[in-house]
Amino acid sequence: MHKKLFIPGPVDVRPDVLEKMAAPMISHRGKAATNLQKSISEKMQKVFQTKNTIVLSTTSGSGLMESAIRCCTAKRAAVFSIGAFGDRWYKMATANGVPADKFRAEDGQATDPKQVDEVLATGKYDLITVTHNETSVGIMNPVAEIAEVVRKYPDVIFCVDTVSSMGGADIPVDKWGIDFCITSTQKCLGLPPGLSIASVSERAFQRAQTVPNRGLYLDIVEIYNKVKKDDKYQYPSTPSLSHMFALDYQLDRILEEGLENRWNRHAEMAEVVRAWARKHFALFSDERYLSNTLTTVKNTRGISVADLNKALGERGFEISNGYGDLKEKTFRIAHMADAQMEDVKAVLAAIEEVLGL
Amino acid sequence: MHKKLFIPGPVDVRPDVLEKMAAPMISHRGKAATNLQKSISEKMQKVFQTKNTIVLSTTSGSGLMESAIRCCTAKRAAVFSIGAFGDRWYKMATANGVPADKFRAEDGQATDPKQVDEVLATGKYDLITVTHNETSVGIMNPVAEIAEVVRKYPDVIFCVDTVSSMGGADIPVDKWGIDFCITSTQKCLGLPPGLSIASVSERAFQRAQTVPNRGLYLDIVEIYNKVKKDDKYQYPSTPSLSHMFALDYQLDRILEEGLENRWNRHAEMAEVVRAWARKHFALFSDERYLSNTLTTVKNTRGISVADLNKALGERGFEISNGYGDLKEKTFRIAHMADAQMEDVKAVLAAIEEVLGL
Repeated sequence: MHKKLFIPGPVDVRPDVLEKMAAPMISHRGKAATNLQKSISEKMQKVFQTKNTIVLSTTSGSGLMESAIRCCTAKRAAVFSIGAFGDRWYKMATANGVPADKFRAEDGQATDPKQVDEVLATGKYDLITVTHNETSVGIMNPVAEIAEVVRKYPDVIFCVDTVSSMGGADIPVDKWGIDFCITSTQKCLGLPPGLSIASVSERAFQRAQTVPNRGLYLDIVEIYNKVKKDDKYQYPSTPSLSHMFALDYQLDRILEEGLENRWNRHAEMAEVVRAWARKHFALFSDERYLSNTLTTVKNTRGISVADLNKALGERGFEISNGYGDLKEKTFRIAHMADAQMEDVKAVLAAIEEVLGL
Repeated sequence: MHKKLFIPGPVDVRPDVLEKMAAPMISHRGKAATNLQKSISEKMQKVFQTKNTIVLSTTSGSGLMESAIRCCTAKRAAVFSIGAFGDRWYKMATANGVPADKFRAEDGQATDPKQVDEVLATGKYDLITVTHNETSVGIMNPVAEIAEVVRKYPDVIFCVDTVSSMGGADIPVDKWGIDFCITSTQKCLGLPPGLSIASVSERAFQRAQTVPNRGLYLDIVEIYNKVKKDDKYQYPSTPSLSHMFALDYQLDRILEEGLENRWNRHAEMAEVVRAWARKHFALFSDERYLSNTLTTVKNTRGISVADLNKALGERGFEISNGYGDLKEKTFRIAHMADAQMEDVKAVLAAIEEVLGL
């Protein structure tokens, strides 16, 4: 039996979108591939609200996150982490010998714009990474306010992880001045995992050109050049064409729904899950910065989350246990992509039934 | 109109295999994902003829090629190149600050095992890369003989690029002592691009653990550990599940056909294309080492290859122009994956028709 997924990716993919994953192959060097990538780029620019260049990478979101911090740090990176995926960004830096410092909020807390200001004021850093939406804790950072701070430091390249929120929340890349904004197919965009997408500013690209030792597969200069050169919209090696076919199609659906409607749908599903969590359990994270794409519930009843998920599985649903150390202390319900209010209500009803609430 | 592809990847994919690309999503951390990866691993071990660990990477073949040379070179790498993809391996080394020297054969020539011996005898190198099948020139290297040489140097990690030949030719990984053998889905395995696969020896893994600065997304230690740890058969980030569904299914088909039958089918198609090329044009590469998966034809008639391909396109076929500097001087006909003899004969007949041969 297929389980309906309420985990923070992979998400359920609509059957008509899945069908596009099965399209026949074409040459990745021909005109059809160029047209496909160009079409994706133009639509992704709308989703990202940017005029920056759109790049694709046949990797998970981690691939382009590593590109950003490795290729665009010339001096030192300031990594603001609020959970597992912020921590991963720091790990990427150290694993590549990129000088970096990590500023870690406590689990359940957001990044403090004041702290960002203090850190950048030291003049030690020329790149900053921020997590827009952290699925390990269910926090959506105040990136608008952080952006206000970063604007004061014109030499700092601003990288934001929107892997689990782009398409599900309002993230105006150009308005916020994000240089390197990364997302991935298997979250709010509603596609299978296997492709990551970023918008890259001319500034970030120019910085990267001054950085040595960028590697090849994840070298943003290689990728960027293939897109820009003679407006070729090409990819350095052979990309996942299947994901590109499906993404191009799904982007039409997303734009048809309307970005604002899509963000609102995510916000409304989040409200319902939060109200339910407050009634039966408690919310784990800072109420001021709750994520619109995933809710982390504090396990105040001391239930076995593993057992709950097993029982839900028999009913055709799957949620997520807490992440890492938060396992069993919390559980997580994602409300992402093409999930509808009735789906969310169904999984909550199933949880109530299992727990006898 | 869909064009039948005779290019060296992407290849045409059977409709029933494409259909598996459209399978619904599952959690990548659940038991089903573990079982899927384990099943793929066991079948891939048969295709690779190895007991080594099978690793997957959501990248093109280039991803794991970069992993190999970056993660497993402690001292210095000797890159034996016979064309564009060997050259790329050297570029990967330098782009990561990995000490390396390139030994380049002339276009159309194979790697000379004697030269390998001379180079390794210097004692300067602890890793060697060899291209098994080079699609830019249509050469299949004498890896059995090279392996004989490498065996004399027990400290050397032996990396072989079989991206465009694994599944289409006999490559006994354990017999030849290949430590890091890399392939990709979109060539002889007959799947869409987007996933790369390698077999990694315990020796290579142990070497990697001594090498600093391995990065994260392409760090073979990260990937290897996720597979081996408690026999979990997991992947460090979110893998392309769609490719995994399709690969698992296609591997059954490949094993059903029989590896030897599959290799023979490739060899027979190659013979027909070579005979045709000798009759109407000439073969570009050293006759002793012709590839069984792709034939490079010397453009002795001075035709316009671009025009030929355009005319073929109108008839529903696509071949490849020469690679890089060999453009228009050569053209390439791939005979890979699930292509059958009648397909090969059809494209040759179409070329004759277009050129009035």
